[in-house]
Amino acid sequence: METIKWEDGILKLIDQTRLPMESVYLSCSAPEELAKAIKALVVRGAPALGVAAAYGVVLGLKNSRAKDYQELESELNEVIDLLAFTRPTAVNLFWALNRMKQTLERHKHEDVEQIKRSLEEEAIHIHYDDKRRCQKMGELGAGLIRDGDTILTHCNAGALATGGMGTALGVIYVAHQQGKRVKVFADETRPLLQGARLTAWELQETGIEVTLICDNMAAQVMKEGKINLVITGADRIAANGDTANKIGTYGVAILAKEHGLPFYVAAPLSTIDLEIKDGAQIPIEERCSEEVTEGFGKRIAPYGVKVYSPAFDVTPARYITAIITEEGIARPPYQESLARLFKEEKE
Amino acid sequence: METIKWEDGILKLIDQTRLPMESVYLSCSAPEELAKAIKALVVRGAPALGVAAAYGVVLGLKNSRAKDYQELESELNEVIDLLAFTRPTAVNLFWALNRMKQTLERHKHEDVEQIKRSLEEEAIHIHYDDKRRCQKMGELGAGLIRDGDTILTHCNAGALATGGMGTALGVIYVAHQQGKRVKVFADETRPLLQGARLTAWELQETGIEVTLICDNMAAQVMKEGKINLVITGADRIAANGDTANKIGTYGVAILAKEHGLPFYVAAPLSTIDLEIKDGAQIPIEERCSEEVTEGFGKRIAPYGVKVYSPAFDVTPARYITAIITEEGIARPPYQESLARLFKEEKE
Repeated sequence: METIKWEDGILKLIDQTRLPMESVYLSCSAPEELAKAIKALVVRGAPALGVAAAYGVVLGLKNSRAKDYQELESELNEVIDLLAFTRPTAVNLFWALNRMKQTLERHKHEDVEQIKRSLEEEAIHIHYDDKRRCQKMGELGAGLIRDGDTILTHCNAGALATGGMGTALGVIYVAHQQGKRVKVFADETRPLLQGARLTAWELQETGIEVTLICDNMAAQVMKEGKINLVITGADRIAANGDTANKIGTYGVAILAKEHGLPFYVAAPLSTIDLEIKDGAQIPIEERCSEEVTEGFGKRIAPYGVKVYSPAFDVTPARYITAIITEEGIARPPYQESLARLFKEEKE
Repeated sequence: METIKWEDGILKLIDQTRLPMESVYLSCSAPEELAKAIKALVVRGAPALGVAAAYGVVLGLKNSRAKDYQELESELNEVIDLLAFTRPTAVNLFWALNRMKQTLERHKHEDVEQIKRSLEEEAIHIHYDDKRRCQKMGELGAGLIRDGDTILTHCNAGALATGGMGTALGVIYVAHQQGKRVKVFADETRPLLQGARLTAWELQETGIEVTLICDNMAAQVMKEGKINLVITGADRIAANGDTANKIGTYGVAILAKEHGLPFYVAAPLSTIDLEIKDGAQIPIEERCSEEVTEGFGKRIAPYGVKVYSPAFDVTPARYITAIITEEGIARPPYQESLARLFKEEKE
């Protein structure tokens, strides 16, 4: 099962709103269709959003009648604007769109058809490069997991969230492949239940023992000594290590600290936004009240009730034991350790 | 709207599994019907369980053909056994059954019909006495609330959980009646959503501004400075102050501590179990996996997934700022302050 497929100029996304009960692909042949799919969370997860957005640019220029670079650039900017405004928090979306823009600029002296081919190649590169990054993160992160560990994770940071095998779950998959006996507790992750629907399913498919809990059970499960460590993914990491991730992550990080458990974040460098100093500058998307009150077919709250539904929260760096990236494991102080990883990447 | 009504020897319970979409009463004319209703959470909340169980004893003996005290006592013990095994955590259930037993013993020299009348009077007394206790708790607890406060609560500890106006919500109602401008954030309280279905509805009906959040949003809401204090109810409080309450309460207490917010528990003395030293001795009910995987009317997790679903957790006394009872507000160390309240009650 591939989360994102690029087939004959068509982008195919496994519809994550219908998993695990149905495995169906949604085909997008225009960026408007992709924008709609992103907003509806057909595709989600920071690295997967980056991959999908890169293909979205290719879809947008595929039938372009631009006669020269200037016309193509203006069309590309329109597509970027369309896709960039779908979801504000995951920085990988902006990172991928920016890479597509740089690719265009790099090829500005070529003819229009050649530029379009180069953009498609770049999107495919971003996709397959994400697989490689997941693999490297998994290998580095697996060193933090001991035989017999039970790991708590929140939301879904697996194959369904990336172009590869996942960030947080990638670490767990590699540990499992290395023969370490690992078990997982998955927070269901309200309101949209990515933990119940996606993480539980992925782990079940891989043959890793998974126990589903409601988000509010994590503290009790830790108190009962059932958890050895926590790993989550990330949607955006500031230069100081403050980490935006699915709503609930910050609470889990506090609980981990209170129970003396390590709290790890696994994310590729494309999730790290060195341009922002700290988490206060990360925009937090607010979602509509119906996702809380009638998300699963049944109204569960009185009509007219006010709902507050931030889709993400920011975990301050001081709660994070280490950040696992494809270039190495960063430890506090993150200001220095994260900057160092970017230097090593360039070298 | 009354949560529990006693009409012509029939126990009528507002069906809390169908709120807020439907307000219908379930009639119980035999203790077996009540036992089933308790297990299905038609009636829930520690004090309400006590009231319902007391009436259940009356239902059980109503058509008794017992000819003497011994026969009546043996029938009463059977009813008590039936009701006591419905839910293990809330001690008020056992407390009320025990009061009914003591009432029987107190009247042992009277004739059978007179004893049955005394038992009915005792059940009605427990019911109306619970109203008085809620009122007193509310008045004492309201002193802890300042004009303009926003309060986070978890699960439902309101009119629907008691024979009166509630424990945690009772405190909020009295503060509101005193003219204090209070607002409430209600945790939805998975898996059975008592916060979304019951607390949001009760507060809406009373005209108190309520905002519904998913359980995993509480940390972020606190971080944003939206909360001034937390109040919850309790299902059983040990002699040292350790408090069993709806799953998720322990996590909220940790979050409150981390954000420097007071965490209050409101509960009548009937919830305090001086016979147990600490929370480790409180039995924690585990509920079935379907409440998690199919609670919204739609299957939300893969078939065969393992689920862990404790219905309650225990918040260690060190996280609790104060325990609000009808006899006074207990502060740490609870070993002494709780024992003192019981002495004052007797005097």
